[in-house]
Amino acid sequence: MYKIGIVGGTGYTGAELLRLLANHPGVEVKAITSRSEEGKLVADIYPSLRGHYDLKFTTPSIDELAECDLVFFATPHGVAMDQVPALLEKGVKVVDLGADFRIKDTVEWSKWYNMEHRTPDYVAEAVYGLPEINREAIKGARLVANPGCYPTATQLGLIPLLEAGIIDPSDLIADAKSAVSGAGRGANVGTLLCEAGENFKAYGVAGHRHLPEIKQGLQAYTDKKVGLTFVPHLLPMIRGIHSTMYATLLDTSVDLQALFEERYKDEFFVDVMPEGSLPETRSTKGANFCRIAVYRPQGGNKVVVLSVIDNLVKGASGQAIQNMNIMLGLTENTGLTALGMIP
Amino acid sequence: MYKIGIVGGTGYTGAELLRLLANHPGVEVKAITSRSEEGKLVADIYPSLRGHYDLKFTTPSIDELAECDLVFFATPHGVAMDQVPALLEKGVKVVDLGADFRIKDTVEWSKWYNMEHRTPDYVAEAVYGLPEINREAIKGARLVANPGCYPTATQLGLIPLLEAGIIDPSDLIADAKSAVSGAGRGANVGTLLCEAGENFKAYGVAGHRHLPEIKQGLQAYTDKKVGLTFVPHLLPMIRGIHSTMYATLLDTSVDLQALFEERYKDEFFVDVMPEGSLPETRSTKGANFCRIAVYRPQGGNKVVVLSVIDNLVKGASGQAIQNMNIMLGLTENTGLTALGMIP
Amino acid sequence: MYKIGIVGGTGYTGAELLRLLANHPGVEVKAITSRSEEGKLVADIYPSLRGHYDLKFTTPSIDELAECDLVFFATPHGVAMDQVPALLEKGVKVVDLGADFRIKDTVEWSKWYNMEHRTPDYVAEAVYGLPEINREAIKGARLVANPGCYPTATQLGLIPLLEAGIIDPSDLIADAKSAVSGAGRGANVGTLLCEAGENFKAYGVAGHRHLPEIKQGLQAYTDKKVGLTFVPHLLPMIRGIHSTMYATLLDTSVDLQALFEERYKDEFFVDVMPEGSLPETRSTKGANFCRIAVYRPQGGNKVVVLSVIDNLVKGASGQAIQNMNIMLGLTENTGLTALGMIP
Amino acid sequence: MYKIGIVGGTGYTGAELLRLLANHPGVEVKAITSRSEEGKLVADIYPSLRGHYDLKFTTPSIDELAECDLVFFATPHGVAMDQVPALLEKGVKVVDLGADFRIKDTVEWSKWYNMEHRTPDYVAEAVYGLPEINREAIKGARLVANPGCYPTATQLGLIPLLEAGIIDPSDLIADAKSAVSGAGRGANVGTLLCEAGENFKAYGVAGHRHLPEIKQGLQAYTDKKVGLTFVPHLLPMIRGIHSTMYATLLDTSVDLQALFEERYKDEFFVDVMPEGSLPETRSTKGANFCRIAVYRPQGGNKVVVLSVIDNLVKGASGQAIQNMNIMLGLTENTGLTALGMIP
Repeated sequence: MYKIGIVGGTGYTGAELLRLLANHPGVEVKAITSRSEEGKLVADIYPSLRGHYDLKFTTPSIDELAECDLVFFATPHGVAMDQVPALLEKGVKVVDLGADFRIKDTVEWSKWYNMEHRTPDYVAEAVYGLPEINREAIKGARLVANPGCYPTATQLGLIPLLEAGIIDPSDLIADAKSAVSGAGRGANVGTLLCEAGENFKAYGVAGHRHLPEIKQGLQAYTDKKVGLTFVPHLLPMIRGIHSTMYATLLDTSVDLQALFEERYKDEFFVDVMPEGSLPETRSTKGANFCRIAVYRPQGGNKVVVLSVIDNLVKGASGQAIQNMNIMLGLTENTGLTALGMIP
Repeated sequence: MYKIGIVGGTGYTGAELLRLLANHPGVEVKAITSRSEEGKLVADIYPSLRGHYDLKFTTPSIDELAECDLVFFATPHGVAMDQVPALLEKGVKVVDLGADFRIKDTVEWSKWYNMEHRTPDYVAEAVYGLPEINREAIKGARLVANPGCYPTATQLGLIPLLEAGIIDPSDLIADAKSAVSGAGRGANVGTLLCEAGENFKAYGVAGHRHLPEIKQGLQAYTDKKVGLTFVPHLLPMIRGIHSTMYATLLDTSVDLQALFEERYKDEFFVDVMPEGSLPETRSTKGANFCRIAVYRPQGGNKVVVLSVIDNLVKGASGQAIQNMNIMLGLTENTGLTALGMIP
Repeated sequence: MYKIGIVGGTGYTGAELLRLLANHPGVEVKAITSRSEEGKLVADIYPSLRGHYDLKFTTPSIDELAECDLVFFATPHGVAMDQVPALLEKGVKVVDLGADFRIKDTVEWSKWYNMEHRTPDYVAEAVYGLPEINREAIKGARLVANPGCYPTATQLGLIPLLEAGIIDPSDLIADAKSAVSGAGRGANVGTLLCEAGENFKAYGVAGHRHLPEIKQGLQAYTDKKVGLTFVPHLLPMIRGIHSTMYATLLDTSVDLQALFEERYKDEFFVDVMPEGSLPETRSTKGANFCRIAVYRPQGGNKVVVLSVIDNLVKGASGQAIQNMNIMLGLTENTGLTALGMIP
Repeated sequence: MYKIGIVGGTGYTGAELLRLLANHPGVEVKAITSRSEEGKLVADIYPSLRGHYDLKFTTPSIDELAECDLVFFATPHGVAMDQVPALLEKGVKVVDLGADFRIKDTVEWSKWYNMEHRTPDYVAEAVYGLPEINREAIKGARLVANPGCYPTATQLGLIPLLEAGIIDPSDLIADAKSAVSGAGRGANVGTLLCEAGENFKAYGVAGHRHLPEIKQGLQAYTDKKVGLTFVPHLLPMIRGIHSTMYATLLDTSVDLQALFEERYKDEFFVDVMPEGSLPETRSTKGANFCRIAVYRPQGGNKVVVLSVIDNLVKGASGQAIQNMNIMLGLTENTGLTALGMIP
């Protein structure tokens, strides 16, 4: 049994780690930290955990965490960058669910996150944790930067086309829609049921922090400069991301369906649906799957890719556990085989 | 008091006509037809109408309807085309909320609606009822084809740019999202709360009936061939449409904000929001307004337009009443001044 | 045109007053106060008001408010008690939507609201603003205590039975369910979409502030001591209250349907539905109506009353305007004739 | 590996059986029947099952089903009563999720279900499958009648009080609220998102089919005649039941909290929450747990019990699998340890 720690356990990604790890046969959660809820039972904050966890929230202590084999950081940006190095030096592996180690260009990072990066060397070392793209590097990593939710859905949708060199990288559009849990459990007016319910709107149109992350991921697959228009929207529901992507085909003779099926044929968690399918976010609700469909409307030169995930699972905590499994040498889908909850 | 008839009153657009007309000072609903509910009180189907309407549903009779000054058709396609001509010949004005008279090219129409058009002469006569574009023609019309919901939100968003000649008409994208009421009140598995709730998906990606309607509307503003990729999606909520539109700017020096403000400065029902605004569908819930914002992300050559309406009001019954007011010489916003319901 | 002021305009009841008064022909909103949003346009907080209000939020000033004919207080408890007396002395009428003047027994009030009452004389003067029960007193009042949302739905359901003396007052049950907007627009974790959505729970089972208010209202109709078990619940939706009430019949020979119909036959805003009806909250969405049905299941000695309102309209701002109309000598339903929004 | 069959697999309870059994280590689904979807892959109806089931729907054949060790019936009432006897005679065990074998008094059954019972002998044999009450009988049963959703939540809440003899059995109230999935996957107007969403109402007030089932269950614990007023309501959400129960205490000296904790101390799936807790339906979402809290408001003589389950899991398919485990001699919670999904 590997020993696991979670830093920042009161938010939704922390709770989701606990939910998913409760039935994981190879690991045990030994420590969970939260300054604000110190001393409380996790089951008092999340009654769904009653009977499965006796753990109490503690204040973060590096020594305590250093007894773990692997520690998840489910913290706002700016926290992990300071605490991770000491853990790594003590031989603990780390998966950071936050944004601190995702963007290699720390100057660019600073612009979007409004702070200096204090441990840029660790950014250089960190491996970007999108297993379907980066599995080999993750295997040997001691620090994995878990991708953002929009970047996961969007990169899985666009990379096969860029890899094949059949779309124009300078004119990509990702019209993405996220459920409200992506905004976290903080008390904000904008995410109240009476504000976000029965409502739909775009946000971050002028610029969103996941834009540079997605561009960095896509840029690796082309020599041309990636041009991406990324517009996120807020869905009146709890879980799910749907990314609708548009690109111009340079070659309309390619069998797009076959291209995607071939690319993901060995991937347990990526399901390329049959031609004409319409992926639904709920088919991944609570589950670590990504479902993708690809279209060429009216036989024109535009390709449309539809990609859905659960933002808290494949878009956060599930993917983090997938990375953990790879890093610890466990079977990659251990503890992650639950199906989407319909209805 | 003008006398009004409604054909097909059991669906949501019929109910919405009744709701909005209940407090209209210049007209009175005299007849409402429904084969399936004949003899029942409308207030038994829609308890919200109790105390305001004594009307019973009747079977359609041209003679009865001919006593009205204006008749709304809130029927599935294929119904109005057969019944409207007789009413027009008896001097009754008609607003058709369905699709029978929207598309001038009846061959194209037949492809999308899977039936022959039996009264193409009336298609030629019909005036497309988007008042902000077509007000003068509506004034003199005896037959108005009320626009579809997606076409209303999308045309109001793209036409100012096409009129100004500053975007490439061959590469337009409309990523549109509609609440479930757009699918009507029919009993279908796909629109059950347990299927459409807590879920999001695209549909009609390969082709949707509103595509030719939007293209026809946009084509009027350019000599180049309009190329439009239109992807509708289903929102887990009751009312609202959000159309997110993407186009490539031919001229990035134009002040987009000023362009939109100028175009709609005299329009009561179109609200161009200040720069940086994020239109919310709920700001139009139950109201006949369209709210629009325009962006040029990262100062690039893409323009992004956000346009929101209530699909049942500005996208259907409210716009139909707006057309009625114009056709009957009433003040255009009579009975339509209610504000969006927040929360 | 009467001049109207609103103190505490940023919450949902303040916004709802603005929405409903925008089309009221007899009054004009002249002042609206909010410390936190001072200087901002109300239309910037509530975009649905754009084009209808130029008003800015100001800090409360008694002199400014004293120019109004009537002022609404839409403030948390403890605010109105201090500001109202000065306004009354300057001849301004007041409707308080908060709880400060609802409970005659100020010692009891203090227990539930955790503060001393600083102006008990005005409590004694205040008229309880449930027009269907108290219309004559409201006519002459200068200070009206607008009822709470649960108390409105529950009293309208139980009073006819108590008046008739046919139920046992010592054993009443009100199992009430409220939409989330009843909790206001404050940023709390418990009312986030991700916490209150797709979820249902009771709250305040050990004791809720509306319990003494309901008991006081019911006690006026019987000499026996009222015993009431009141359990509120939180519904995963935005608007609506449903109170399900249970009582033991002392006399099972009474025609309950006729009793309710007779009691409310002259009430514009109370709709006693036909036997066997199931009132839906949405039939009152956005509207000032209360719909009621009464049952005697299996012909036993239990009576079950179902009562629905929109908590923000008949349960708050609509009823406040109804009281205003009565106090100012306007027709009681002026500005309040909009129908429930279905769907 | 036990072989399992499912008759009537297209509805929500059938789908939920497939979801839960996909990761069950001791059984394998070998056959699933549906007349309407014969020949289709189950994964085409429920995309969440893609990659986990190759099964196709077949038409029911007793011989095919007889190769199974246990068959679930997830059919409308009236189906199982005809097909079950032949299976039993061939040595197959059966769990019926429908209503055919729940009510011992078949005359009473006929009144509520509007048909004759054609196999009353099997009703007499059937064991009522509420394991927390009836575990020993289930162990030896070949036919188990799986309880209804409301009866599960309500009986688990009231039986400890009746067993202890401390409440008046003649005056019980269960005010119950169910999510929409309880109504099944049939295409009905009443369960459309636009009808059931943002709405709340009671139904079946005059009489609901679960009333005699609950009364039968409660009657076993008292010699006095059970009097129960049962009012179900429809919640605007997908999953969850909350039963709020009221009874009059004959003895107010009993420690209610201790009573419930003792009664369920060995039950894995029943969680008696600490005093003052408010059970949330979502704490059981997707999980087989029942959470209960007990109150005596204001120290009076009324006891209030709050009980929550997921109607599709502990209220249907999860409980059916719990019964299956018991009948097959497997550990009772095998395949049922997933936690409630929050958020």
